[in-house]
Amino acid sequence: MFKINYEDKEARAGKLYTKHGIVETPFFMPIATKGTAKQVSPDELKLIGSQAIIANAFVLHLKPGLEVLNNFKGIHKFMKWDKTIFTDSGGFQILSKSFLHKADEKGVYFKNPFDGSKKFFTPEDIIDIEEQIGSDVAMALDFVPHYGNSKDYIAECTRITHLWAERCLKSHDAKRQLLFGICQGGIFKDLREKSAKFINNLDFDGIALGGLGIGEGRENMFNTAQIALHHIDNAKPRYLMGVGSPEDLIDCVGLGIDCFDSRFPTMNARHGGIFTSQGKINIEKVQYKNDENPLDENCKCPVCKKFSKAFIHHLYRTHEPIRDRYGNIHNLYFIQNLMKDIRKSIKNNEFNQFKKDFFKNYKLNKNKNTKFTYS
Amino acid sequence: MFKINYEDKEARAGKLYTKHGIVETPFFMPIATKGTAKQVSPDELKLIGSQAIIANAFVLHLKPGLEVLNNFKGIHKFMKWDKTIFTDSGGFQILSKSFLHKADEKGVYFKNPFDGSKKFFTPEDIIDIEEQIGSDVAMALDFVPHYGNSKDYIAECTRITHLWAERCLKSHDAKRQLLFGICQGGIFKDLREKSAKFINNLDFDGIALGGLGIGEGRENMFNTAQIALHHIDNAKPRYLMGVGSPEDLIDCVGLGIDCFDSRFPTMNARHGGIFTSQGKINIEKVQYKNDENPLDENCKCPVCKKFSKAFIHHLYRTHEPIRDRYGNIHNLYFIQNLMKDIRKSIKNNEFNQFKKDFFKNYKLNKNKNTKFTYS
Repeated sequence: MFKINYEDKEARAGKLYTKHGIVETPFFMPIATKGTAKQVSPDELKLIGSQAIIANAFVLHLKPGLEVLNNFKGIHKFMKWDKTIFTDSGGFQILSKSFLHKADEKGVYFKNPFDGSKKFFTPEDIIDIEEQIGSDVAMALDFVPHYGNSKDYIAECTRITHLWAERCLKSHDAKRQLLFGICQGGIFKDLREKSAKFINNLDFDGIALGGLGIGEGRENMFNTAQIALHHIDNAKPRYLMGVGSPEDLIDCVGLGIDCFDSRFPTMNARHGGIFTSQGKINIEKVQYKNDENPLDENCKCPVCKKFSKAFIHHLYRTHEPIRDRYGNIHNLYFIQNLMKDIRKSIKNNEFNQFKKDFFKNYKLNKNKNTKFTYS
Repeated sequence: MFKINYEDKEARAGKLYTKHGIVETPFFMPIATKGTAKQVSPDELKLIGSQAIIANAFVLHLKPGLEVLNNFKGIHKFMKWDKTIFTDSGGFQILSKSFLHKADEKGVYFKNPFDGSKKFFTPEDIIDIEEQIGSDVAMALDFVPHYGNSKDYIAECTRITHLWAERCLKSHDAKRQLLFGICQGGIFKDLREKSAKFINNLDFDGIALGGLGIGEGRENMFNTAQIALHHIDNAKPRYLMGVGSPEDLIDCVGLGIDCFDSRFPTMNARHGGIFTSQGKINIEKVQYKNDENPLDENCKCPVCKKFSKAFIHHLYRTHEPIRDRYGNIHNLYFIQNLMKDIRKSIKNNEFNQFKKDFFKNYKLNKNKNTKFTYS
């Protein structure tokens, strides 16, 4: 169930009810593909304000495998996370040469990157896997094309995505698991409109916008999201997959998106990219060598409470593996705190003022076409 | 200052007083070469019972450099560890091709592995670096030979170590910093005896046994340690460098050692080697795939309180980087808890019974020549 409690122009704040509790929307999910966030423990994820995470059903089915997950009565007890878990279906793995063998309307031949074996999966198989994994929200299997594929190819992927969506819905019978559909269509207005309408007309518990944040650039992403949102019921939770930079989160909440996931915060941290209230900095820069201030003076994350920029700079410069933990915790906290502030501003009908204030301080890179990282 | 409060045959329990507090002996130090333990935060180190850590003066002088450390008024505030810190001198780096250019009795030419530059260091330079870093216990510069070097070569290294020891002592004037000397001599009885006597006769605050745990095997290590200990004052703290397996810690406490450091717990964790009360297991083995028990049923570490063997097994099998954190925390906790139990048993005059009980459960590998890892 999804309930919108506050509306501030297009932005909305509400509650998504799952079998592991209530998620206040709009929200951002850290990625835990294999059952753990990168370098961040479940306790730390909670501490920094994460309400939900997203794992990957296809990857988990390979390892540890369904036998283990069934033995633990599902993913929550296995990974020790008692809040909401989404599972992505494997549609995203279609983008990856190490996973995809081939796909057609019957289903998808996946390669097992651990042992090279090939196996055929129908949409029904994927739903069965997600049900066994026991996530709170399952994603339908979708056929994700690359950005830059031909319109004909993307039209065909979208057609297959629709067939699969119907089959996923039909086979899904885990009563307490929500099922979200995913629209595709690349950045082509007619394809995206058609797909949004089609998926919206099916009886999904939420609608995701897939195939974005994969190199199409900021402007294309916004335009496409807007086009799709016009054809999605206001009452349904709307999930923009693969988007997670501070600036994009704010702008997309402004379009009416409720749910996000992305590797952006952790991939940035990996390369020294640290979010601060003044904008993203590169902590590896020599200017921070002697800096006794925390990563962000306005941040209350466990890393900023403890360490100086100089120390974190030193860990990056000397390739100490713990740097990833500290960088990830800080960046994820920054995002979770941003989402909290966003929710508050919507409740107070001050979202636009909040946005203005945020961007007054937060300096964007000159290159407008920020690279997106899909989940 | 060092005070022995309890003696149980050769084993002793006491207190080492440093400017950052009292260390209960015998104790084990996790290694924090560059100012952080591998994947373990200062808060976690405390939580698992670490009283002291050992950093590396030579490496810290390269990065972040003395300017930064002086700016932070020393290593404690830089790395945010307010308990005891030892600094190793750089003698161990003499063993490493990436650091050593050449060494003679005047001092050592070190290469900077970060930029390839070469620089000459006298024993006085090293002491000055350790004083500026502000560690609680500085180690004298020693000339560490490889195990397997000729007796003549090791005799020469030992002669130079003695010259350097005198110069280190003479130049050391940080009143609140302790200075430990290091004896060498390889596994040659006459050389080791001579070196132990020589270093013991100088006015050091503690005596370390160096050049062990580098491949000489368990029996040679014990024999050599015993030979050296005969010539070291009972009243001085005795530090066996580079030893840290559960079985060696117990046996060496039984010889009268008070202080240890080693990569052994974290290097084992890195390859799936997990200490348990029944012996070391390899968590990557398929038998743990479905195991719902903690790594060690008798362990109260944060990892065992939370996760199953099956989950940790999964993290290792899927190369999730957080596995190193969990493995290190567990193994370091196991060692710190063992040292706590050892101290208690000495206080109660039950050390030998404790040792017997421990080895009744703790199965040793058949290969007696456990590989040692020097710090």
